[in-house]
Amino acid sequence: MLSPDEAWSVIETQLTALPEESLARRAAAGRVLARTLPARVDVPAADVSAMDGFAVAGDVPAGESRPVAATLAAGVAPGYRLQPPSVARIMTGAPLPAGADRVIPVELAVVSRDATTVIFQESGKAGDHVRRRGEVLRAGDPLLPAGALVTPGALALFATHGYAALPVHRAPRVAVLATGDEVVPPETEPAPGQLRDSHTDFLLAAGRSLGLAFEPLGIAPDRAAALRPLVERGLGADVLLLCGGVSMGEFDLVEGVLADLGCRALFDGVAIQPGKPLVFAVHERRDRDQRDHPGPGLVFGLPGNPGSVMVAFWLFVRPALKRLLGFADGWWRGALPGELAAALPGAGRRDRFLAATLELRAGAPPLVTPHPPKGSHDLAAYAHGAGLVRVRAGSEPRPAGDSCEYLPLGG
Amino acid sequence: MLSPDEAWSVIETQLTALPEESLARRAAAGRVLARTLPARVDVPAADVSAMDGFAVAGDVPAGESRPVAATLAAGVAPGYRLQPPSVARIMTGAPLPAGADRVIPVELAVVSRDATTVIFQESGKAGDHVRRRGEVLRAGDPLLPAGALVTPGALALFATHGYAALPVHRAPRVAVLATGDEVVPPETEPAPGQLRDSHTDFLLAAGRSLGLAFEPLGIAPDRAAALRPLVERGLGADVLLLCGGVSMGEFDLVEGVLADLGCRALFDGVAIQPGKPLVFAVHERRDRDQRDHPGPGLVFGLPGNPGSVMVAFWLFVRPALKRLLGFADGWWRGALPGELAAALPGAGRRDRFLAATLELRAGAPPLVTPHPPKGSHDLAAYAHGAGLVRVRAGSEPRPAGDSCEYLPLGG
Repeated sequence: MLSPDEAWSVIETQLTALPEESLARRAAAGRVLARTLPARVDVPAADVSAMDGFAVAGDVPAGESRPVAATLAAGVAPGYRLQPPSVARIMTGAPLPAGADRVIPVELAVVSRDATTVIFQESGKAGDHVRRRGEVLRAGDPLLPAGALVTPGALALFATHGYAALPVHRAPRVAVLATGDEVVPPETEPAPGQLRDSHTDFLLAAGRSLGLAFEPLGIAPDRAAALRPLVERGLGADVLLLCGGVSMGEFDLVEGVLADLGCRALFDGVAIQPGKPLVFAVHERRDRDQRDHPGPGLVFGLPGNPGSVMVAFWLFVRPALKRLLGFADGWWRGALPGELAAALPGAGRRDRFLAATLELRAGAPPLVTPHPPKGSHDLAAYAHGAGLVRVRAGSEPRPAGDSCEYLPLGG
Repeated sequence: MLSPDEAWSVIETQLTALPEESLARRAAAGRVLARTLPARVDVPAADVSAMDGFAVAGDVPAGESRPVAATLAAGVAPGYRLQPPSVARIMTGAPLPAGADRVIPVELAVVSRDATTVIFQESGKAGDHVRRRGEVLRAGDPLLPAGALVTPGALALFATHGYAALPVHRAPRVAVLATGDEVVPPETEPAPGQLRDSHTDFLLAAGRSLGLAFEPLGIAPDRAAALRPLVERGLGADVLLLCGGVSMGEFDLVEGVLADLGCRALFDGVAIQPGKPLVFAVHERRDRDQRDHPGPGLVFGLPGNPGSVMVAFWLFVRPALKRLLGFADGWWRGALPGELAAALPGAGRRDRFLAATLELRAGAPPLVTPHPPKGSHDLAAYAHGAGLVRVRAGSEPRPAGDSCEYLPLGG
């Protein structure tokens, strides 16, 4: 059985960021830039005042009164020309009028009661308190590099440069297929021995937290003839997430159908608890467009237990999807240090993962409360909180107050 | 001028979690439960096997051969009754058949070559390896408490308990109004002295990152007659976000219109850089439905500079919206320790906030690269990364390798 590090290095070899697509600017929020984009305008767009003060042409002897001919704010009288000896009152950010060569700050000016004249305490020198056109950025300079996250701030930046569309790595198409004769949709009252599907709800919401709309393919029964066309449809996606029920031999059946359809399993177990029987497979469909998806199609066979599905998703599927989206991510790479608010149990021969609630504290690691499950049926344990805490294989129990490492899950 | 701590304590007094609404289960992802919800079924729903093994009735002397009469998996033959001396092969999670009182694990069994008989090394005792119905949770027990985040895992849990809808705190309605004669929509080519609106793009995306669809009201010119009806419309929302351009006197105008419409400013400046001229106001409209929104309407007047809008939003507006959504949040409350990957400048008399890129490292604080702006025009500085790093007032510059505190911005 592979260690989680080994499992990730197998997965990682199969991951290539997906090619570029062009999205309307606002729709690109949360995606990753596929190319470095240049500035389209100079910043500032003109010589502008860096202070509230007076736009002046040349030296003004201290104590000499000058007429105030205009008041210039951003967007006001942009074509205004200064007529010396007049000066113009000017606001921070307003374009310097033609003829002016400096700004004298308001703090160095004494304005007459009727505001028509001004006397300066100092004259300064040419260029003082003027931000030059293009001083921050020139048209053609890089704005944000390839690989940058399109943050809300990046959208604001691209808006000011007039970008209507942005080139980002396209989103992976992800199909979700639950399996199991005993599994019924959540809206159905289960008969004795049946259970409601929880995997589809979990995976769709986990996908949305990455900005992705997973396609649910429903619940496949444990018969090859019924399973095969659904799996085949799922293989048309970039990533197929299969989750088993708990009935006997189900995964043998799924693995047989996958093999029949040309999938090659790269591993079928990882030393984690829960989530051990995780299957990872790839396929090269003849009908794939290499420009659309240069890497292989990916299949994750997530073990039937709900806690296992969640842990396997957060640990391996999420970073794999982020890599396809163009993010730099890896298994456990986003984990942070925390402080235990309650005791953490130990672990046996596998790394153990527990859901955890996080209590945030400004500037200090959060207080982490782990929720150990009361057995494999305890789905509620994995419903709590916004973190996943790791108990390394062979660890002794730790008391409250000790440090721990947790993966933030968002929210 | 207020310190950021003082500003937040003023804002905080005006915040009440919004009342409950019922959302279809999957639509409630990311929201906060308004009530503790009970389990609707026992977990497990029946006595089930905790192991792969054999369901047995009573003691079986070591070495005695027993016929294997059936194979029981979850969802298979739920009404099956054991006929001693026969035993039944049983899978983990399968209901214990009527008549059986224990499970003997497969590791303690020797099965005949044709799988029809079995000999046990140990007999165990009644109840061994059986999970009792309701052992994890009984119908009526609390599933998740009021105040819990509806995580993907919580959706899975509620799906298994057959919840079609969930009671969550309703989302605030947030209106966004940009102002300024010189401001044009991003799709318009600006004339000299004009600039493209970046605030609406930023705020809409920042809202979406909280799962909220802000309503953009457009760009209001600097005339009371045109501004007033737009502000009035915005006051119909729970929260109005006003962002100024940079033209002179604009905020005086906005503050006048707000006062005319019955808004009371609680502060108009915070000692932060950028973002100092932040205005916070409240209003009690006569047409408000107290059940729909028990607190006052809120108005944030965000200063015109794009960096200021972003910093003021992340620091104050976001935690305020999260409190309305039912989260426990506060200004700077989610800040975490980081390690500087580059030098951090010092700060003068105000706390300074810089956008920062984060390089994640498993289990250690991330490496934080701050992006100090090249002047107030440098919107690009605030477009970078997924963190906001704080430089406390009066701090000296810090070298790479020193610690810092940063607020994660998501993504």
